[in-house]
Amino acid sequence: MKLVRFGETGQEKPGLVHSDGTVRDLSAVVRDIDGAALSEAGLSRLAWVDAEMLPIVPEGVRLGAPVARVGKLIAIGLNYADHAEEAGMQVPPEPVVFMKATTAICGPDDDVECPRGSEKLDWEVELAFVIGTRAKYVPLEAAMDHVAGYMVCNDISERGFQIERAGQWVKGKSHDTFAPLGPWLVTKDEVADPQALPLWLEVNGEPMQTGTTATMVYGVAYLVHYLSQFMTLEPGDVITTGTPPGVGMGMKPPRFLKVGDRIGLGIKGLGQQQQRVVQA
Amino acid sequence: MKLVRFGETGQEKPGLVHSDGTVRDLSAVVRDIDGAALSEAGLSRLAWVDAEMLPIVPEGVRLGAPVARVGKLIAIGLNYADHAEEAGMQVPPEPVVFMKATTAICGPDDDVECPRGSEKLDWEVELAFVIGTRAKYVPLEAAMDHVAGYMVCNDISERGFQIERAGQWVKGKSHDTFAPLGPWLVTKDEVADPQALPLWLEVNGEPMQTGTTATMVYGVAYLVHYLSQFMTLEPGDVITTGTPPGVGMGMKPPRFLKVGDRIGLGIKGLGQQQQRVVQA
Repeated sequence: MKLVRFGETGQEKPGLVHSDGTVRDLSAVVRDIDGAALSEAGLSRLAWVDAEMLPIVPEGVRLGAPVARVGKLIAIGLNYADHAEEAGMQVPPEPVVFMKATTAICGPDDDVECPRGSEKLDWEVELAFVIGTRAKYVPLEAAMDHVAGYMVCNDISERGFQIERAGQWVKGKSHDTFAPLGPWLVTKDEVADPQALPLWLEVNGEPMQTGTTATMVYGVAYLVHYLSQFMTLEPGDVITTGTPPGVGMGMKPPRFLKVGDRIGLGIKGLGQQQQRVVQA
Repeated sequence: MKLVRFGETGQEKPGLVHSDGTVRDLSAVVRDIDGAALSEAGLSRLAWVDAEMLPIVPEGVRLGAPVARVGKLIAIGLNYADHAEEAGMQVPPEPVVFMKATTAICGPDDDVECPRGSEKLDWEVELAFVIGTRAKYVPLEAAMDHVAGYMVCNDISERGFQIERAGQWVKGKSHDTFAPLGPWLVTKDEVADPQALPLWLEVNGEPMQTGTTATMVYGVAYLVHYLSQFMTLEPGDVITTGTPPGVGMGMKPPRFLKVGDRIGLGIKGLGQQQQRVVQA
């Protein structure tokens, strides 16, 4: 299934993308696409729904982030060997973990805000996954049982705030609109191998990032296992897995986003995002 | 008001501490102590309640964290000059900000889990405050309008996970039970000056930390203003403001918590916590 949330910001309703390409309204079936809906029982229930019978949502409706009430937005740093190199850093001996504020989450095509005082606004196309079942001290071989599905994430970053403003990356990762998610949450059963997905990002039509999740250092299963040693993952938690090469900070000279720029990005099978940069 | 949440984990009901010392049941008045209840309108409504008329909760009931559905748990590092010194670090030129997983939140007297593989489990008594009104780009002079109240927080930390496990502190700050909050959320009107509160912590009855929020480098008002430049603070978000000297890591030789240890801590006017360390 391709699950979505549609409607105005803060008023989103649950829906799914039917095989005919239309968005169908799920609000008679489920309250929202949240932790409860993403549990094994919740997803099984949705899988029985006859999409043909659901109301069609008018074309052009705004899509929100496909998951509501995300408890934690966890991100992995330097998780592609070639991106670590462009950032001038070594591949870490174990995953680098940081948090983004959940208030940074927005829809896939919402405007991205350039914070006041920002001079180093950057992009990062990433594969994000969503937890379906509570995970604490999960062995590697059972890790995938805890994953509900996958999404595109643009891990927007302000490099000055992240790196030059006294320790810890969270300051450069948390501004409103710094985590566009979607367009869809694609359930696990529709993604044959999360470690074989091409991803790409362009700015004003110019290609910036192309890569594949095949070169990810720590894959999805390992991340579930690893993170669950340090904190409990709950249904609806989102983990974004790091970015391939081609971010603005790594260019010579560095290149950053300006108000008015347009970002396009996508992952094969998971859909595309389009954002415009506006002043906060 | 002193607001509480009482009952078994995950089943807590809202309550308040009456002037006669009894806990009174607020569940007929408000759904829970959450962002909505902590808004200016929500708190005004609660202030009109005649506590005398509310049902008395039996003594000895478990208290949970006084805030439900915390969206973000933000922490400030090295925010007491003398603590920075014992940690071998300089006072930062601006606040050091990190996140703790919201799943770390527990009641004030709940057992604290020693994670598997932990060898450096440490304590940190801290003043925490709770946001009552949405804050984005808030000027310093209006910052206190966004604060709903104050609580004691024990910012439990695993120093090995925090410092020796490849970048970013969140790994050592996020295990379940690493953020006991309470016993009460004391509303702002009952705290004359948040920058003049004595705080203390002891382990097995032995004093470890004594200090006062008067020596905090970046105070509550500044932190609201500062954080609101980097992310939007929402009602129910909790910010814990850093710890005074006396943590185990700073001792010579360092001293860490063991299974069976008992921690006691408190802040004048905000109540006390008691935890026992157990194996995860």
